[in-house]
Amino acid sequence: MQDFVFDNHTKIIFGKDQEQVVGQESISYGKKLLLHYGGGSIKNSGLYDRVVESLHEQGVEIFELGGVKPNPRVSLVREGVELCKKNNIDFILAVGGGSVIDSAKAIAAGCKYDGDVWDFFTGKAVVTDSLPLGVVLTIPAAGSESSTGSVITNEEGSYKRATGHISLRPRFAILNPVLSYTLPAYQTACGITDMISHILERYFTNDRNVELTDRLCEATLRTIINNADTVIQDPTNYDARAEIMWSGTIAHNDLLNTGRIGDWGSHDIEHEISGIYDIAHGAGLAIVFPAWMKYVYKQDVNRFVQFANRVWDVEIDLNNLEKTALAGIKKTEQFFKSIGMPVKLEEVNIDDKHFDEMASKGTERGPVGNFVKLYEDDVRQIFNLAK
Amino acid sequence: MQDFVFDNHTKIIFGKDQEQVVGQESISYGKKLLLHYGGGSIKNSGLYDRVVESLHEQGVEIFELGGVKPNPRVSLVREGVELCKKNNIDFILAVGGGSVIDSAKAIAAGCKYDGDVWDFFTGKAVVTDSLPLGVVLTIPAAGSESSTGSVITNEEGSYKRATGHISLRPRFAILNPVLSYTLPAYQTACGITDMISHILERYFTNDRNVELTDRLCEATLRTIINNADTVIQDPTNYDARAEIMWSGTIAHNDLLNTGRIGDWGSHDIEHEISGIYDIAHGAGLAIVFPAWMKYVYKQDVNRFVQFANRVWDVEIDLNNLEKTALAGIKKTEQFFKSIGMPVKLEEVNIDDKHFDEMASKGTERGPVGNFVKLYEDDVRQIFNLAK
Repeated sequence: MQDFVFDNHTKIIFGKDQEQVVGQESISYGKKLLLHYGGGSIKNSGLYDRVVESLHEQGVEIFELGGVKPNPRVSLVREGVELCKKNNIDFILAVGGGSVIDSAKAIAAGCKYDGDVWDFFTGKAVVTDSLPLGVVLTIPAAGSESSTGSVITNEEGSYKRATGHISLRPRFAILNPVLSYTLPAYQTACGITDMISHILERYFTNDRNVELTDRLCEATLRTIINNADTVIQDPTNYDARAEIMWSGTIAHNDLLNTGRIGDWGSHDIEHEISGIYDIAHGAGLAIVFPAWMKYVYKQDVNRFVQFANRVWDVEIDLNNLEKTALAGIKKTEQFFKSIGMPVKLEEVNIDDKHFDEMASKGTERGPVGNFVKLYEDDVRQIFNLAK
Repeated sequence: MQDFVFDNHTKIIFGKDQEQVVGQESISYGKKLLLHYGGGSIKNSGLYDRVVESLHEQGVEIFELGGVKPNPRVSLVREGVELCKKNNIDFILAVGGGSVIDSAKAIAAGCKYDGDVWDFFTGKAVVTDSLPLGVVLTIPAAGSESSTGSVITNEEGSYKRATGHISLRPRFAILNPVLSYTLPAYQTACGITDMISHILERYFTNDRNVELTDRLCEATLRTIINNADTVIQDPTNYDARAEIMWSGTIAHNDLLNTGRIGDWGSHDIEHEISGIYDIAHGAGLAIVFPAWMKYVYKQDVNRFVQFANRVWDVEIDLNNLEKTALAGIKKTEQFFKSIGMPVKLEEVNIDDKHFDEMASKGTERGPVGNFVKLYEDDVRQIFNLAK
């Protein structure tokens, strides 16, 4: 087990109608608030009105910036930073899913920096402080509601890059599973794939003696897998939506990687796809992960056997461990298919045209992944396995 | 699943030699610190010197109060409160196990209160604020290093009572598994029993649709069980000590009871035993829990079947679920025995002399437990099952 620091201050407020406390929770951080959100869905659902009412009850002055798109753009982030600086905003409230939260985090970091906020994503600068932020979550997927990270796309050059700092952990996150009832099946499945991927990135490690976190990962994976079909078939099933929503936060709040170094190669590879093609991050992951697994499993067959056995109930064939490992990978791929995810690039009409470019861009800052370090040619081969 | 708030700000600093950062971590809370500890063991081991050196390096002014005993006494707490108030202490550092931490928490609460600190434990007053505190943990057991609770004994009348508040969660907890190497086998086993009990109290609930937390409980239980024999046979095995130490914190940091109401009857019953007889809390729990299980399992046989199957690998006999449930209870009892714990009162020389008194005192504020509400006669019957 590696030494570690686990420091997660996000206050989770979970349950029905909990958005009504957003005003109370926000006011302790200041009177001037940026309300950040995406399109019209929160207005259509009435969530916007309920949030604004709760904020007004506490006398919060609201500034607004909507329009966040999936794969959130740095141009909107820059606009947000300018707005906040000009109006001396105290606090940012993100109402939405991972894209809105990541956009809000980038704004929060940019507010404490004199240069261009994109610097944090190129490595030219590091985040050391941010405005405090809070979240009302509508899409269980990214886990950004309790994580330190933010992923932003720079539309000039189609770069999708990440940054992170502890100050970017939201101060609170309101998780009301009812808010996820209206998510369409496809988006629900993308979210499920995203949270599963967050656990897999942590699960595949070269660190030894990480039993507790292995088992916590497996527990969370099994819960997600076990509830996936229900939330897709029966979208207003509170209990299943609740299991999925809380699992999505646990998947990415850093508990599951205490004492271990995760991989994250598949995320980096996927960012190259959705940076260019603008497909849903979850769909990209459903395509990349099985290909990545097939490419790397020989690095530690036993770990893949444990995964197959403990997560997918594959019986261990002691005379053919490789067969057991491969059966687990197959189960993973079949599961993604079963919830309506693509598992091949051709299913989302992506051909090999940009493979070279994506492999090159994805590794221009060095190899990706930790479980196995992947260089340009490795990434290209993974794209080929995912064709 | 119940609605819940999960709000745990304790920064966990885990790994070898981590006590060397205690000065840095403490100084941000103020210059005047109360160093609170138990007997001579931290002096003999050199830990005391390392902690003091780290504090001095940061220019912290140290006030000292040692002498905390197992089942910490309110008299020492009162002394601590007086010392802190007189010297305007900013921060309390507990170096030790659960007793030291609980004593430090009671002092922290008492410092912000004009009345007698015991009021918090009788229900006459509630904690609303406390001095900040930090921990260097030496005994993995109580989970107090990241919990909101404190249990104190009033030697006048042999009362053992609990209080709690979020301000009592330590600001940081330093967890160095090496510090637990010198724990004797019996104390190690008591700690293991304590952390297992913390999970069992949460596991046995009447709440439905709590799959994620069920599985996280089972994951943590299996990890503890799987490493118990190793830490007892091979006390300087870092990896096993690390699994046990981190599991002990997770067992009691409130993650495992998100969305569910735990039982806690066995803890209340055990407090009556260790309030009078001064046996180790863990040993008392090893005696009470199997008896409690036998008394209550019919409340929800299926839950006990799940426990038997998922934690103890007992095959489910669909034609005789009760048999499966009882097999899980038996495995639990056998496990406690296997690590050297008593499982009957007679093994620790306790006869039925005080059964009536303990049953009466234990229920004087109403029935104990939530899974099954236990009245005076129920508690007496559990003592009889534990004879």
